[in-house]
Amino acid sequence: MQNENKTTKGFLVTFEGIDGSGKSTQIKILEKNLLDRNFKVLLTREPGGTYEGEEIRKILLSEDKKYEWDSLSELLLIMIARREHYLKVLLPAIQNGTIVLCDRFLDSTVAYQCGGNKLSKDIYNNLSSLVLKKFLPDITILLDLPVEESYNRIQKRGILNKFDSYSIDFYQNVRDEYLAIAKKNTRVKLFNALSSKDYLCKEILDVILKKIQNDI
Amino acid sequence: MQNENKTTKGFLVTFEGIDGSGKSTQIKILEKNLLDRNFKVLLTREPGGTYEGEEIRKILLSEDKKYEWDSLSELLLIMIARREHYLKVLLPAIQNGTIVLCDRFLDSTVAYQCGGNKLSKDIYNNLSSLVLKKFLPDITILLDLPVEESYNRIQKRGILNKFDSYSIDFYQNVRDEYLAIAKKNTRVKLFNALSSKDYLCKEILDVILKKIQNDI
Repeated sequence: MQNENKTTKGFLVTFEGIDGSGKSTQIKILEKNLLDRNFKVLLTREPGGTYEGEEIRKILLSEDKKYEWDSLSELLLIMIARREHYLKVLLPAIQNGTIVLCDRFLDSTVAYQCGGNKLSKDIYNNLSSLVLKKFLPDITILLDLPVEESYNRIQKRGILNKFDSYSIDFYQNVRDEYLAIAKKNTRVKLFNALSSKDYLCKEILDVILKKIQNDI
Repeated sequence: MQNENKTTKGFLVTFEGIDGSGKSTQIKILEKNLLDRNFKVLLTREPGGTYEGEEIRKILLSEDKKYEWDSLSELLLIMIARREHYLKVLLPAIQNGTIVLCDRFLDSTVAYQCGGNKLSKDIYNNLSSLVLKKFLPDITILLDLPVEESYNRIQKRGILNKFDSYSIDFYQNVRDEYLAIAKKNTRVKLFNALSSKDYLCKEILDVILKKIQNDI
């Protein structure tokens, strides 16, 4: 019965970290590793993951110089994409026994909007309760990278988006906020993004397989 | 010195009412009447009024059937357009001594989203305080129209948008909510939209000229 999906409880794994930390690479490797083991897996991302959310993503990442969103408006845009994603993708998939892998989720908002842009955490918390109620990821993989190395890796990529043009200070604040989140939340598994790709993918897979084992 | 603008305190006049109530006609006549008297006037609208807000308006009024926004997301979209409008247009214009005439504003949101779509007023109030602080229109012209007459007028127009396709019950709830707002707020001046165009434009101009007189 090799082609039949294994039955497991659905849950949400989020990948977090500053740009260049290897999230996109590691999330794809994890997806393949879980699919090879016949689990039901869904790979998604924020902002985005729905038709409506991808439209919001286009606006947020737009290079249109006429867009000068106030920082509160930007936070509200992110929250709308999250609301749609939560209702239409995350909840149904988890209830359906799927392991959902999401590239960025709420910790990105705390790290970038509150840590980086200095938006009030009270405002964030109120909006987050409104949009997600008490919903949280089950496991968060945080790939921690020194800011200097992030800059090096982004430059090598060549393709920059508007978030890649923020200052070193901004990214240092984002990284510090991520580390503070990791300290406060046991769901967050902290990894050194300077480790080798192979070491990281093995360790990350281990975390997920242990979670599945515990759920049985 | 006929071409010099008269100096007055800037303030915000909003026009409200269900579709077909004659808002757009009356707001343009008032604009002309005030310009003829050499006041500084700005005609604007919601959702919209800024580059960013007009993009949000396109999304909200889009005929794209793939858009199925959750009602909370729709409210958040409206609030983003309002935030941009408030910061970039309304506040600066009022501080600059301009009489701002706005086609729809916060009462539309209470009437349509809370009255029509039954969204919680607590949620609306929290979001509104976040986006506008305590800012309110100085005068609101409410053109009240029976729902049946609104339907007749919309049909004659021929051009329908998605809000024109809601049920009679929905519009009845919107109208009732508007009337409840008028009862509670002295800033709201209630007019019977079945009155003649000429009568209405004279009465509306009177309200505004009295306000200017009182401000001097």
